[in-house]
Amino acid sequence: MKIYADIQSGNCYKIKLLCSLLDIEHEWIHINILEKETHTQEFLNKNPNGKIPLLELEDGRCLSESNAILNYLSEGTPFSSTDTFNKAKILQWQFFEQYSHEPYIAVARFIAKYLGMPDDKQAEFKSKQSGGHKALSVMEDQLSKTQYLVGDSITVADISLYGYTHVADEGGFELSGYPAIKAWLKRIQKYPKYISME
Amino acid sequence: MKIYADIQSGNCYKIKLLCSLLDIEHEWIHINILEKETHTQEFLNKNPNGKIPLLELEDGRCLSESNAILNYLSEGTPFSSTDTFNKAKILQWQFFEQYSHEPYIAVARFIAKYLGMPDDKQAEFKSKQSGGHKALSVMEDQLSKTQYLVGDSITVADISLYGYTHVADEGGFELSGYPAIKAWLKRIQKYPKYISME
Repeated sequence: MKIYADIQSGNCYKIKLLCSLLDIEHEWIHINILEKETHTQEFLNKNPNGKIPLLELEDGRCLSESNAILNYLSEGTPFSSTDTFNKAKILQWQFFEQYSHEPYIAVARFIAKYLGMPDDKQAEFKSKQSGGHKALSVMEDQLSKTQYLVGDSITVADISLYGYTHVADEGGFELSGYPAIKAWLKRIQKYPKYISME
Repeated sequence: MKIYADIQSGNCYKIKLLCSLLDIEHEWIHINILEKETHTQEFLNKNPNGKIPLLELEDGRCLSESNAILNYLSEGTPFSSTDTFNKAKILQWQFFEQYSHEPYIAVARFIAKYLGMPDDKQAEFKSKQSGGHKALSVMEDQLSKTQYLVGDSITVADISLYGYTHVADEGGFELSGYPAIKAWLKRIQKYPKYISME
């Protein structure tokens, strides 16, 4: 299988991390979004939404959306769940990630790190801070009760949230007020076959 | 089971629609978000993210995020899939909905319909239009090829996208340029036990 991605994107790194933890063989194809490589006709034929990461199977079928890809790759492994409620809980955290976490923490990081914090983006950067801290508080609340987001073993919910949380400082989010999150980050980093973003 | 929700919210209506289509018994508890009923301590104990819809099981366990709830309720029914790839495709469309569709189409509708289009929100309303049309184009592309978003039978992916697409005009999105979407909306509306938003 082929994965079209950029390791610097948390949404792509999630997939790379899961592939490493689960020893999933794949071909990693680097895509430069700033060079608009997601907007070529060839790429749009694979994903009309023009976004990475994108998974392409041997038979040509394609799957987009980082969290859909994580669920697909983890099906039947310990990173998923066979319990219907826990499976839905994993999804709950992944939808939370895309709606209440990524649009604040990843976007603030994108402005600061990729765009170099231009003057005309400073107001947007600042507007992302309170939503980002709210998301971190919701995670802190859960991680004060359980070792991982869905109970006491790691699932793809953790991989999803780990992606941008572990580089939240690059978006201006200081994690010192979130001891349970910091302990959880370390727990994941100690996992066998863990790989870092760079 | 109890569902805390507001039928006027597309994210809540999705759940009501699926419950009707699948004859799922439930108690519907109306929550007024403008009155901040999602921010009481009692509600935050059930969902620390302070959002509706929220599902509460008989044993007190709670599940948030509309699309996680849809997957939970549809597990083992024809609105889900037993095929791993198709299941992931359903998720792909649901994550697309939350990241690339709802933040434009639902937010524009919220500004126009709930807030009454105040002067200080007009710029934000306008800024939502191009992203909303991009999302509609991605749907139109798929629905020109298949009857439903994931192949030729209805799944919870359709229920998810139907929620805000069928009231997109309330957010300023004219659907006349999207004939495949219009045909798909009619197809869903003809479904036995279909219920409308109001």
